[in-house]
Amino acid sequence: MLIVMSHNATTADIDAVVRTVNEMGLTAAPIPGRERTAIGVLGNQGYVDDSKILELTGVQQVIHVSKPYKLVSRDFHPANTIVDVRGVRVGQGCRPVVVAGPCAVESEEQIVKTALFVKQAGADMLRGGAFKPRTGPHTFQGLREEGLKLLAVAGRESGLPIVTEVMSPDSVGLVSEYADLLQVGARNMQNFDLLRELGRIRKPVLLKRGMSATVEEFLAAAEYILAEGNDQVILCERGIRTYETATRNTLDLAIVPLIKEMSHLPIMVDPSHATGKRSLVPPMALAALMGGAQGVLVEVHPEPEKALSDGPQSLTFPGFGNLMEEVRRLTGFLGYV
Amino acid sequence: MLIVMSHNATTADIDAVVRTVNEMGLTAAPIPGRERTAIGVLGNQGYVDDSKILELTGVQQVIHVSKPYKLVSRDFHPANTIVDVRGVRVGQGCRPVVVAGPCAVESEEQIVKTALFVKQAGADMLRGGAFKPRTGPHTFQGLREEGLKLLAVAGRESGLPIVTEVMSPDSVGLVSEYADLLQVGARNMQNFDLLRELGRIRKPVLLKRGMSATVEEFLAAAEYILAEGNDQVILCERGIRTYETATRNTLDLAIVPLIKEMSHLPIMVDPSHATGKRSLVPPMALAALMGGAQGVLVEVHPEPEKALSDGPQSLTFPGFGNLMEEVRRLTGFLGYV
Amino acid sequence: MLIVMSHNATTADIDAVVRTVNEMGLTAAPIPGRERTAIGVLGNQGYVDDSKILELTGVQQVIHVSKPYKLVSRDFHPANTIVDVRGVRVGQGCRPVVVAGPCAVESEEQIVKTALFVKQAGADMLRGGAFKPRTGPHTFQGLREEGLKLLAVAGRESGLPIVTEVMSPDSVGLVSEYADLLQVGARNMQNFDLLRELGRIRKPVLLKRGMSATVEEFLAAAEYILAEGNDQVILCERGIRTYETATRNTLDLAIVPLIKEMSHLPIMVDPSHATGKRSLVPPMALAALMGGAQGVLVEVHPEPEKALSDGPQSLTFPGFGNLMEEVRRLTGFLGYV
Amino acid sequence: MLIVMSHNATTADIDAVVRTVNEMGLTAAPIPGRERTAIGVLGNQGYVDDSKILELTGVQQVIHVSKPYKLVSRDFHPANTIVDVRGVRVGQGCRPVVVAGPCAVESEEQIVKTALFVKQAGADMLRGGAFKPRTGPHTFQGLREEGLKLLAVAGRESGLPIVTEVMSPDSVGLVSEYADLLQVGARNMQNFDLLRELGRIRKPVLLKRGMSATVEEFLAAAEYILAEGNDQVILCERGIRTYETATRNTLDLAIVPLIKEMSHLPIMVDPSHATGKRSLVPPMALAALMGGAQGVLVEVHPEPEKALSDGPQSLTFPGFGNLMEEVRRLTGFLGYV
Repeated sequence: MLIVMSHNATTADIDAVVRTVNEMGLTAAPIPGRERTAIGVLGNQGYVDDSKILELTGVQQVIHVSKPYKLVSRDFHPANTIVDVRGVRVGQGCRPVVVAGPCAVESEEQIVKTALFVKQAGADMLRGGAFKPRTGPHTFQGLREEGLKLLAVAGRESGLPIVTEVMSPDSVGLVSEYADLLQVGARNMQNFDLLRELGRIRKPVLLKRGMSATVEEFLAAAEYILAEGNDQVILCERGIRTYETATRNTLDLAIVPLIKEMSHLPIMVDPSHATGKRSLVPPMALAALMGGAQGVLVEVHPEPEKALSDGPQSLTFPGFGNLMEEVRRLTGFLGYV
Repeated sequence: MLIVMSHNATTADIDAVVRTVNEMGLTAAPIPGRERTAIGVLGNQGYVDDSKILELTGVQQVIHVSKPYKLVSRDFHPANTIVDVRGVRVGQGCRPVVVAGPCAVESEEQIVKTALFVKQAGADMLRGGAFKPRTGPHTFQGLREEGLKLLAVAGRESGLPIVTEVMSPDSVGLVSEYADLLQVGARNMQNFDLLRELGRIRKPVLLKRGMSATVEEFLAAAEYILAEGNDQVILCERGIRTYETATRNTLDLAIVPLIKEMSHLPIMVDPSHATGKRSLVPPMALAALMGGAQGVLVEVHPEPEKALSDGPQSLTFPGFGNLMEEVRRLTGFLGYV
Repeated sequence: MLIVMSHNATTADIDAVVRTVNEMGLTAAPIPGRERTAIGVLGNQGYVDDSKILELTGVQQVIHVSKPYKLVSRDFHPANTIVDVRGVRVGQGCRPVVVAGPCAVESEEQIVKTALFVKQAGADMLRGGAFKPRTGPHTFQGLREEGLKLLAVAGRESGLPIVTEVMSPDSVGLVSEYADLLQVGARNMQNFDLLRELGRIRKPVLLKRGMSATVEEFLAAAEYILAEGNDQVILCERGIRTYETATRNTLDLAIVPLIKEMSHLPIMVDPSHATGKRSLVPPMALAALMGGAQGVLVEVHPEPEKALSDGPQSLTFPGFGNLMEEVRRLTGFLGYV
Repeated sequence: MLIVMSHNATTADIDAVVRTVNEMGLTAAPIPGRERTAIGVLGNQGYVDDSKILELTGVQQVIHVSKPYKLVSRDFHPANTIVDVRGVRVGQGCRPVVVAGPCAVESEEQIVKTALFVKQAGADMLRGGAFKPRTGPHTFQGLREEGLKLLAVAGRESGLPIVTEVMSPDSVGLVSEYADLLQVGARNMQNFDLLRELGRIRKPVLLKRGMSATVEEFLAAAEYILAEGNDQVILCERGIRTYETATRNTLDLAIVPLIKEMSHLPIMVDPSHATGKRSLVPPMALAALMGGAQGVLVEVHPEPEKALSDGPQSLTFPGFGNLMEEVRRLTGFLGYV
């Protein structure tokens, strides 16, 4: 930690800062400069709460060197984590995976038909929402437990592992009976009670980035899960909220290689929610894989024009079939077999 | 709802849209233009899911006229809602209120001392966090139930109503035993299970705007609470996340008069979280009241330099005393007695 | 400047950094920590280019303490600057001013009528655009030199100083023949050739904040003008671009007290462009003054529904008359006579 | 255009809107709905200024169907534009190009050495800044005309076409004597005088997206150039400003396929400015090509640690050599020879 004093700070101000730092059990090392003095702080084991220091007269700024996470950091855990989703391995060195399925489970026919199709086209896992977070209360909120049961049927018939969202701590038990990979949606990235609960189960978690979460907050959210003992976490970039409304969100693809430097956890990309527009999904899915993503989540629906949610961003069966062709060629080009 | 066709849409495309709209039980009214055709949709009672239409060939855009909320809208409920927090009335026509207290409850001495001071200085309610959402798992997370009990003591001693945050659906019961006004924090604005649970209790709710929530999403979140039967909701602007980092968040004060046009619910402002900097709190608190806010939430701490969270944005006792002087003068100027 | 080394940096890495810093004519002071080493850099007179250091192995981050501006900073120039616009004084301690007029000069009748009205209602200066920056080339771009001449007529008839925008370096001469205060629009805040040219004239400049400019960039843009010798600069907050589209821009009012701490230059607020909606202009104008702004710019038009640009945000004559009533009461309340 | 009336609009309000639309020479078609009336507007040839309508009582919203651009739109000009930069063809169907070179021209040795290296490694054009826009006035601003002359030398020695930035209308003549492709930087995307001037020359233009420009504004800026008669425009995505600071900007890659749908102009990507971090440049350059970009701009410097600007994002010679290897493999995979 570094404390920057203001231009006009007095010797007494500097002394008071040094004293306070020492009282916190840390060591203060003043660095006098021509324009101002800075004070280095040594001896902290992790993140230090800076409030007491920011209070003092003459303090202009406190700069943190340590981060609010540690377990997820590559700095402290250099080896890549490979997440195993019922036999499908996700992470550095593994062939990138494709998770496909409808936004919401709507009926047995819809989900089974989709599962069989995406399996045959080459998908690795089946996604589908049973609990759906929606902006307003007057729209379709998902089939809930009934939806989970339909997912289980589709999983059995297709042999694909199941990915589905869990929205509250008290439904973690229920959802983990059916799901192979439990998804935390963007709106819940900082639902800390939910994260802690997921840290206590023995199933992998897919953590989506919050709509306006920084990379640091994203990693700190994953830290909640690891801190409770579950290190089987896959991160997922799904677009962030910016001033630009030409796409549903802004796909922040550059964090893929960045997170691979910062963390040992695998990272996937969801081009469907990121763009919100069917025609943009295939180019962005392929760009994501080329940029190093360890998998993509793609929405597919047998009849997108009749979907109860997110129809405009869902691929049709032929559209998904074409994308899988290209994904296969690309993963071959990238050296995976 | 208006459907905009692309420049090159054919007559068959337009016919297909008209047919689909009719199948949805609505009426389609094509409006041919020189460059393209638009199709008005009549007969909908509220928000219409546009997925089926966006699917069709030749459709360029669908524009919604209806909104994902209705109960919170002034359009359908012109009279102002006055929220009653154990005798303190909040809303249009009422004297603006001041809610004050520390970010987190830390000890009996701290919270009681603060309660007595802010009461004597003129505050209307006491705030203090017992459950604290924090970015990372390795920092102070609040005293939890113990904190609620200390708040109750402070409430009894000062006579002030208590405002405190509730973070999950299953603690709504517990928190409402102690709180007079239950706060939903920014990170939980779209925790829909929590909102629904709060719609079923008989206590007022303070709903903070999410960090990147639009006004429309903010009102739709309140709609979840009203839809379950609780109309005692106070909205609270607390700054949004933007590219600017010179302040902790960007205080979006213009939504105060805007929301007063759009909704009948009262709206307050939290200049402490919005700015994150003590010296900016008093000018922004006063600006908020001048701009029409029906109250302000201000963080106050007996010793901000020792606060366990948010010290830099907390007012000292003398600082709060001065602000209350100015608030009193201003509310007098604005015609309240 | 502080250099943060990565966790795994070797002694050789640290030595290389120290050597490079010394080669730059500065002094390096390593601060070993438990998790990593940081290196303080002393002796720099101002902003240091950090590229050479960021290049070195083991360097994780470089943190700047110095800023890209100095002349505009209160740190180095504590006394307030008062800008004199043909006798109207703007700055700390002066009565806040109101600049009013139409977005664009459209005709002699329009601008003279408006000038006489706003003068009689109590405005201090007349604004009006002769050169209009517009998103697309197919809309009204202003009357250009003809508009300047009409402004001069309106200025003479009303006795008000004239504020108008200048868009390119080669029209600074022409515009300064007519204007008393030359405005730089948001789109040109970083048109550095224009800023330099304005630094060489002897007339005051109104610098609007860029649509996505940080406070630091805003002050650095003003620094360009001061660096050429012109310190008569008024800053103007006019709303920033964020994800929120319910208002035209997001009025960032909290930077008003912040900039007053950071700089000695006066700061005004433009609630018309910030909100884009007539009904929000009066509450935000009053909030701005209450928050410490040294003036407001307000768009007024005799017939807003016929305005060639920005009609929806322009006040009518009666609307402006009412606002001026309230401004007068408020400035009285604030202690100005 | 569609006019949405408020819930409470009266028949008289609607009649007034219809009358006003008719007075504007257009046709109004009211569409009564259960909750409110909407009014379609027919007969407009392009973008209509909506101010007069927004003024009227009972009008809630005006929705535009037409756009502020036409010449750049694929709707009106379906065939792809191929831009020819001294023999190097850029656009749909052409092999994607690589433009490489240092951020700023610093010396003859630096630029010639870089030109020869990037040419030999396979680059198609040489970039280098002679006029440099910088946040503050106290840093290196480029070698100006001297820099142009050095670029000319490097262009001659390597045989590569030259790409360099032009910052003001009055230097368009000078820069076009030396440059084969004139670059408009992000800060100048809405410097309309500059755009118009570039519309009058017979050389191609590389238009970078503004830091907070929407896709619509980006295309409307290009429209300024085309409207003056120059259709040789290449668009360039270079990252936008968002709340996320982990990268220098946020690379908005999804607009690449989107702009290819909306416009016939070619689009390139600059991963160096978008990410600001050397290690992220190669993955994002490759992702951009995979996502359909028609070229990439990459910063390369012989000794990035000594670069006068943007060193941290510049590739070294070996780094660029490696990237070119991968680009060659990828363009082969994509079917270009």
